Amino acid sequence: MSRKTKLISSPSSFIGIDGDGYISFGSGQPDLPPPREIFRNLEDRRLFRYGLIQGEIKLRQALAKEYPNARPEDFVITNGASEALDLVFRAIRQMHGRVKVLLCQPYYYSYPPLVELAGLIPVYTRLKEGRIDIEDFRKKVRGVKAVLINSPSNPTGRIEAIPTLHEIEAITQKLGVYVISDEVYKDLIYVRGNYLIKGRHVITVNSFSKTYSMCGLRIGYLWARDRKIVDRAIDIKVHTSMNTNTLAQEMALRAMDVPQSFVDRQTKIWRERRDFICDGLANLGFSLWKPEGAFYVLPKIKDSGRVVSELFYKHKVITYDGAWFGAPGRIRLSYALDVEKIKEGLARIGTYLKGKENWLV
Amino acid sequence: MSRKTKLISSPSSFIGIDGDGYISFGSGQPDLPPPREIFRNLEDRRLFRYGLIQGEIKLRQALAKEYPNARPEDFVITNGASEALDLVFRAIRQMHGRVKVLLCQPYYYSYPPLVELAGLIPVYTRLKEGRIDIEDFRKKVRGVKAVLINSPSNPTGRIEAIPTLHEIEAITQKLGVYVISDEVYKDLIYVRGNYLIKGRHVITVNSFSKTYSMCGLRIGYLWARDRKIVDRAIDIKVHTSMNTNTLAQEMALRAMDVPQSFVDRQTKIWRERRDFICDGLANLGFSLWKPEGAFYVLPKIKDSGRVVSELFYKHKVITYDGAWFGAPGRIRLSYALDVEKIKEGLARIGTYLKGKENWLV
Repeated sequence: MSRKTKLISSPSSFIGIDGDGYISFGSGQPDLPPPREIFRNLEDRRLFRYGLIQGEIKLRQALAKEYPNARPEDFVITNGASEALDLVFRAIRQMHGRVKVLLCQPYYYSYPPLVELAGLIPVYTRLKEGRIDIEDFRKKVRGVKAVLINSPSNPTGRIEAIPTLHEIEAITQKLGVYVISDEVYKDLIYVRGNYLIKGRHVITVNSFSKTYSMCGLRIGYLWARDRKIVDRAIDIKVHTSMNTNTLAQEMALRAMDVPQSFVDRQTKIWRERRDFICDGLANLGFSLWKPEGAFYVLPKIKDSGRVVSELFYKHKVITYDGAWFGAPGRIRLSYALDVEKIKEGLARIGTYLKGKENWLV
Repeated sequence: MSRKTKLISSPSSFIGIDGDGYISFGSGQPDLPPPREIFRNLEDRRLFRYGLIQGEIKLRQALAKEYPNARPEDFVITNGASEALDLVFRAIRQMHGRVKVLLCQPYYYSYPPLVELAGLIPVYTRLKEGRIDIEDFRKKVRGVKAVLINSPSNPTGRIEAIPTLHEIEAITQKLGVYVISDEVYKDLIYVRGNYLIKGRHVITVNSFSKTYSMCGLRIGYLWARDRKIVDRAIDIKVHTSMNTNTLAQEMALRAMDVPQSFVDRQTKIWRERRDFICDGLANLGFSLWKPEGAFYVLPKIKDSGRVVSELFYKHKVITYDGAWFGAPGRIRLSYALDVEKIKEGLARIGTYLKGKENWLV
């Protein structure tokens, strides 16, 4: 790398870079539009008044219908899944003190800082082939108060086997450990339906961002069977952000009315793109875990930090360093962009890799 | 109080109570509508994509023009002033550890929990006649890392004298103490223009909620001259909530384009209501600090907790217990409702007070 090439240290370095010849495999931002139905009659004056801290009752009622044995009062509508996780960790901190939280590595890059910001201690179980290694999980879960599961996973694109999820349910139930299940990609699974992890100690976190291409509106939620978590999360949110944007909650409610075919159509597009990028990366010689959900792939490459910087500065291709996700020696590519752009991006990566074939082992 | 009357313990007890014969002097929710201009062309697809964590550049540019020597890069757009305060306290915690924060008592009820949630320690200076007692302030500021100022104040409705603000600027500058200035009511001052507290150690917090009746949309911001605070706040927000709702930021930008006459017209209405409620309360025998800004009044009454409960259960009048704001022996009335309702509410309070005149001393 030339002396002038600055090493890129976090995804935020790429923020605001758009168009101008760049191909971005960076942010997990669907390029597909949101459903048109969500725009009707937004001038309602009520939408500009403070709303319930917990979230609008109609939206919580609609969500309760989507989950087994769920009640509207068990949901909290949040500023995206991010705030849901933040509230859950802060609630756990208030109730249990400075306890440990088990994370899977590679992890979504916000997980360790979220745990630490709340005053909790992250510990890690290493994924095997991008999925939970139940033997290691069993060892590491001892002594923690909560585990965070993310299936489909960002960044690995893998989903957990259902027997693994059953085992996690049983172990954590027995030990009295919370399971925080981040299921923001639950509607983007290519190989089976979503398996909703169950139990009185489970906290499900979800979002409208990916399913309905509404990332910028920041509507997510948590659903907990444990009343204490819900109450505590609301008590905290009163002070830290108050109600979630009422207008966006109304739009989320309308999105839920959209026929399932909207979601199915999107999933079909993601699957085609997944196949396209996986084939392309394989042709370039990359070894990778085939994604089963979400829209990320995490192929191996030596010196991933240098690769990310050089691809950006020399070839105008944005990728994320696996190191940011606890996976150095890999790069993360989001395939939430159209096939023509994927093709062009892969061609540039191919050019860059000429003579560097030994980096791919 | 009859045995059956449950003591009301927090403002959240009143949430969702609306209409049905109730008169609410509770929440600080303007009843006036937002400007119509903010509704144009909301279908723009870009608004649904992730935005900059720091906030949309156009909105920050517009804000920078409103403040002296301000630059767009010194602002962070947040989920209301609440999140701005939360981010500032968390940033201070990260940079300086478990330090003390000086709050003025009576305080807005979220201040102590926000300080504590961030892992900081609140200490208090007692207001005199609803305003800062600079002698006490001078003593208490020693040993703290930050002070939080709120002028106009919720709940006292008072504004700080400009010489007081000058003194605070000088003392805190000398001691290297941050001044967090919550100015969400800056456009609702009846007695003079707003005085913007200045200095490199000042963090200004503001919101579109009150000025433009956009409470439910949750658009606020922080403006800090100290680059470290801004950078740290962004670093935290990446994980805890990501960008603030992009659609609402666009609406806030349009609100800023609305002629000043919109704000002036609203202020005139607030002033009339203030005069009306103050006269009414005085006629009932209450002693109070005349509000100079915002839309709250905090009259004295014995056993304020009982009064709030009985007014609610027996007379369908919502008021807030001063104790929730660190001011037991007072009740807070918001006058963000129309004069006819204020009149009816005062009449009911009058009925309730018959034979209890000695509670007002």
